[in-house]
Amino acid sequence: MAYFDVASSAPLHPVARQALQASLDDGWADPSRLYREGRKARLLLDAAREAAAEALECRADELVFTSSGTRAVHEGIAGALAGRRRVGRHLVVSAVEHSAVLHSAAAHERGGGAVTEVGVGREGAVSVSSYADALRPDTALACLQSANHEVGTVQPVAGVAEACRAAGVPLFVDAAQSLAWGPVAEGWSLLAGSAHKWGGPAGVGVLAVRKGVRFAPQGPADERESGRAAGFENIPGVVAAAASLRAVRAEAAGEAARLRELTDRMRARVPELVPDVEVVGDPVRRLPHLLTFSCLYVDGETVLHELDRAGFSVSSGSSCTSSTLTPSHVLRAMGVVSEGNVRVSLPLGVAEAEVERFLAVLPGVVHGVREKLGVSVAGGGDGDAEAVTVDALGLTCPQPVIELARAIGRVRPGGTVTVLADDEVAAVDIPAWCFTQGHEYVGASPRPDGASAYEVRKAP
Amino acid sequence: MAYFDVASSAPLHPVARQALQASLDDGWADPSRLYREGRKARLLLDAAREAAAEALECRADELVFTSSGTRAVHEGIAGALAGRRRVGRHLVVSAVEHSAVLHSAAAHERGGGAVTEVGVGREGAVSVSSYADALRPDTALACLQSANHEVGTVQPVAGVAEACRAAGVPLFVDAAQSLAWGPVAEGWSLLAGSAHKWGGPAGVGVLAVRKGVRFAPQGPADERESGRAAGFENIPGVVAAAASLRAVRAEAAGEAARLRELTDRMRARVPELVPDVEVVGDPVRRLPHLLTFSCLYVDGETVLHELDRAGFSVSSGSSCTSSTLTPSHVLRAMGVVSEGNVRVSLPLGVAEAEVERFLAVLPGVVHGVREKLGVSVAGGGDGDAEAVTVDALGLTCPQPVIELARAIGRVRPGGTVTVLADDEVAAVDIPAWCFTQGHEYVGASPRPDGASAYEVRKAP
Repeated sequence: MAYFDVASSAPLHPVARQALQASLDDGWADPSRLYREGRKARLLLDAAREAAAEALECRADELVFTSSGTRAVHEGIAGALAGRRRVGRHLVVSAVEHSAVLHSAAAHERGGGAVTEVGVGREGAVSVSSYADALRPDTALACLQSANHEVGTVQPVAGVAEACRAAGVPLFVDAAQSLAWGPVAEGWSLLAGSAHKWGGPAGVGVLAVRKGVRFAPQGPADERESGRAAGFENIPGVVAAAASLRAVRAEAAGEAARLRELTDRMRARVPELVPDVEVVGDPVRRLPHLLTFSCLYVDGETVLHELDRAGFSVSSGSSCTSSTLTPSHVLRAMGVVSEGNVRVSLPLGVAEAEVERFLAVLPGVVHGVREKLGVSVAGGGDGDAEAVTVDALGLTCPQPVIELARAIGRVRPGGTVTVLADDEVAAVDIPAWCFTQGHEYVGASPRPDGASAYEVRKAP
Repeated sequence: MAYFDVASSAPLHPVARQALQASLDDGWADPSRLYREGRKARLLLDAAREAAAEALECRADELVFTSSGTRAVHEGIAGALAGRRRVGRHLVVSAVEHSAVLHSAAAHERGGGAVTEVGVGREGAVSVSSYADALRPDTALACLQSANHEVGTVQPVAGVAEACRAAGVPLFVDAAQSLAWGPVAEGWSLLAGSAHKWGGPAGVGVLAVRKGVRFAPQGPADERESGRAAGFENIPGVVAAAASLRAVRAEAAGEAARLRELTDRMRARVPELVPDVEVVGDPVRRLPHLLTFSCLYVDGETVLHELDRAGFSVSSGSSCTSSTLTPSHVLRAMGVVSEGNVRVSLPLGVAEAEVERFLAVLPGVVHGVREKLGVSVAGGGDGDAEAVTVDALGLTCPQPVIELARAIGRVRPGGTVTVLADDEVAAVDIPAWCFTQGHEYVGASPRPDGASAYEVRKAP
């Protein structure tokens, strides 16, 4: 069995388990009580806060523990926006933020606020200049992840922080995917993280708010955690979270180069082993343990199921929208193929042999799925038709792209294929497919029945 | 060492510890993932939900796990209010709810809603008829605790539920203090609880919303826990919480009669052993393990400190406002003395000998504190003054009451004492003291300097 999905959740680190068990005896009482059990709980809480703050490179009194990374994001963004309401109600986010950030932005819009989404390049990163251009005099807050959760691309946080500083706008950094690997570079105003992503327990997030950043906690008042995280403190959880962050950092320092070599190897070999694959994300400025690729002409769900049967746990598309059947907003924003998407995130200490076994298994899995779907599009060749229209109405991903790939072989170079499709994934995957295959994506026109007609011109 | 403060937080139950440890191996993955680790996590989560729902006597699909009891209260009240916004924006609460409820009510008021606080009698319970009178056509939600957290008085939930049903208003029950002892009687619409109060781990609350109750989750969207509790699921925590609730219920059934006998004994003997003590709360309709009393002429903080030195962990006044130096809102609403307040809440399995030792230690502790304060008021007697004015400006609790008690001995029966005081606790404790001593509290008049003049007529 190989668990290759630590970007979703990492198994509990042995140090976290030890710290959790050790603090169950002394960490259950109310730390605001003055009797002995309360004082013991307070000592544990204070020590955990010191350790976590050191790992985040902030002051202990700048850091609170929340009940999850999601909560750290929700409370952090809401508090920062409210703290700067007088400045304005404009929020800037990147288009590839985690859903916790984008849902916060949507809530802000519902409440009458304005939101600008900064787009990303094909490798998943924002550019500093386009981010800077989005900042306005009424911008209350800017949000940027440290690294993307789906494709591993590292964002230019330092540059964006500098642009925000120049504009007088606080920067909120969602560091959930990167904290195991190191602190975020200086310049952030607020920072959020999630313990179960670094091998700590579920139920613990961290929110740091730099001194001097205006912050007004929202929701009903609660005096715990400086009023920034309501609810009785989960002290065994935070002790385990802080202890494991320190331990994981020490291991990560030793593992980063090895994992990067393994993921580089996968990035190179997957396209050699499997036809019609696009490896996505920045090849260099990326997290060491994560890679993502999309296999044309298959659906991700079936690939995942077959990989699970073969003993590999990986995920597909957006980690948080997979159940909604909509394509990943990250892949969409990058303009890359979303069908047949596979994200691999390797755990610390993974055996090289497991990675090799994955590379040995993957081609057969993808081939099997394509065979079931009756796909035989490789090769292609040219036909003599000038223009072909394909009716893919009612067909879902990956069928519209498969139909397009078949039809492209029937037209002459420079000829056109029009695909009629109502599956919304087609709007992402048809242009992305054209890009990977070298054909020209002309555009889409809406039809009266709600579907779209996608026009593709074959490479001359 | 005797920990007598389970109403704040109970030590982790052995069953909770076992369940927590057992589920660390299988409960760390994302339960929404379809691979094997995710499926294992999902099985644990589903089983915990079934077990918790059975203990609450609701359906599993009515129950979500939150990150704390506080969060269950905050999200439950906000969601229910939003769900019935079309009906109106009026909220009814009792005056003795936990601060999580009252802070939710305050947030609702800040947002433009209306709140009615239903008062309580001297024993801490609302009356069904006065609660029913507070319900209006525009009432969106009514809130009532199952039992009070400071004095243990059990509220007439069934009667209030019936009145709410008749008025078509959903009833939210904060059952944090009573779930260890049994389910809440039928009739509630929403129910909240907190695992660490019943010996489960911190970081877990429960929120049940009956089918058919309109509910609109507030804040940023999140698909976990039916959209009602944002954040990655803390599965080891919820497994431990559910397992321990079942175990604690079984023990509580056997312990209830014994603990009630012990607390009855304390209720009877504390006033015999310590002069000038008022035992508060309902003597019969109360939680079996909890009693509260106030010792005149001492400050609770010092009493707690001395009891801690003697090996007893108890709390004083409101569990959540002790750090704010304001008198407990519960004791104030009941009109009882707040000074020298001690709450004792016995753990399951407490040794009778520990209770006896507490009774042996308490008189010396209170006597010692009174001696340090120079209190020698017992006895009293009569003087011949017609009216005495006492300047207690700048003095804090319990000094104004001590000055009053001294002065009352200098006036003739039927004469008056006027106390000038600026400590806000005096507004609670002077009337309450009069009640316990049989003197007439005439009233208070504000002074230009912001202080008040409290007038007391000595019993004839």
